[in-house]
Amino acid sequence: MRIVIMLFDRFTGLDVVGPYEVLSRLPGAETVLVAERPGPVRTDTGALGLVADASLAEVGAADAVVVPGGPGQAALMGPGPVHEWLREVDSGSSWTVSVCTGSLVLAAAGLLRGRRATTHWAAMGQLAEHGVVPVRERVVEDGKYVSAAGVSAGIDMALGLAGRIEGDLFAQTVQLGIEYDPRPPYSAGSPDSAPPEVVAALLEGSRFGE
Amino acid sequence: MRIVIMLFDRFTGLDVVGPYEVLSRLPGAETVLVAERPGPVRTDTGALGLVADASLAEVGAADAVVVPGGPGQAALMGPGPVHEWLREVDSGSSWTVSVCTGSLVLAAAGLLRGRRATTHWAAMGQLAEHGVVPVRERVVEDGKYVSAAGVSAGIDMALGLAGRIEGDLFAQTVQLGIEYDPRPPYSAGSPDSAPPEVVAALLEGSRFGE
Repeated sequence: MRIVIMLFDRFTGLDVVGPYEVLSRLPGAETVLVAERPGPVRTDTGALGLVADASLAEVGAADAVVVPGGPGQAALMGPGPVHEWLREVDSGSSWTVSVCTGSLVLAAAGLLRGRRATTHWAAMGQLAEHGVVPVRERVVEDGKYVSAAGVSAGIDMALGLAGRIEGDLFAQTVQLGIEYDPRPPYSAGSPDSAPPEVVAALLEGSRFGE
Repeated sequence: MRIVIMLFDRFTGLDVVGPYEVLSRLPGAETVLVAERPGPVRTDTGALGLVADASLAEVGAADAVVVPGGPGQAALMGPGPVHEWLREVDSGSSWTVSVCTGSLVLAAAGLLRGRRATTHWAAMGQLAEHGVVPVRERVVEDGKYVSAAGVSAGIDMALGLAGRIEGDLFAQTVQLGIEYDPRPPYSAGSPDSAPPEVVAALLEGSRFGE
């Protein structure tokens, strides 16, 4: 199966590499990173470049298309070639998935109208503006559309998707291969568990602030 | 502070991008990806290229140096420019850290002799061959040397390190920013929790098999 991951300027690195690490290990997977123009695409911090190996125009079909988030998402909310490309690949995809604010781009392209989806916790309010039913869960599936919450949630989403595609045994083998037995040193990964001053600090300084 | 992440052919993508996503957000961080030669470096699957923005020779000092793992580690176990470079940057670093089988490279370069360290669960036996005390924990700290277990453990390691460098409040803010509230869909992330057939499947087909 062909897995196409879309890059754009100022995406968040882990949004891409979490799902990549899992989905690229599916048997027979051909994983291709694409962007409007081929070549290096820089993340939100500017410190990391990932290579887009093809342009959007070169890859017009995908079994699974993955849209990451990141501050660059804000530049992709209007009509244009990215929306056109997303509608085209979505028309033939088996799975159209997002991580973090990637769901906002899918929503702006008109692909999630009336559907349930999630996004980064701090961007949740924006989903409804695009006719999406916001759901505060780590991974939300509605038909072939699967959305993950913020950044690291793409790993959980991809493992679940790998299980749907190739079975639980395979997905568990990937989980063990990447030793995904998380032990966060803090309990601050959700606004419900993080100390209030952490939530406040993040919202004040954040790219995610609404 | 300058954070230098070393790439090599056939590294594992998440080994790099997990720590990158956390450490590059440290206040004043200058994060640089390096490799023997600058330019794109491909991961173990071949499907992903990360850009090395400088050569090893161009970046001879680091406050923190991060060495990922991956099947390409096997080609870095003998003497050569990578070991020389690692010894040089380590001589001035505040932190020398590894993810997955990256600790084997540090060990082979002579930097972990007599120290406690961890690696990917399936490679654990190799640490002792290099005079390292193997420890089956997710993150192991011994002085300025911090090692993480397989692949995804680099996220946990980096959050802990961020807390050590910048304080708990900052590290928690990063954790909330990347919404790291993991919910793996399976309990298969450790050989102790994974079904035996999953452990067997991974060891049979695995790059990690000893």
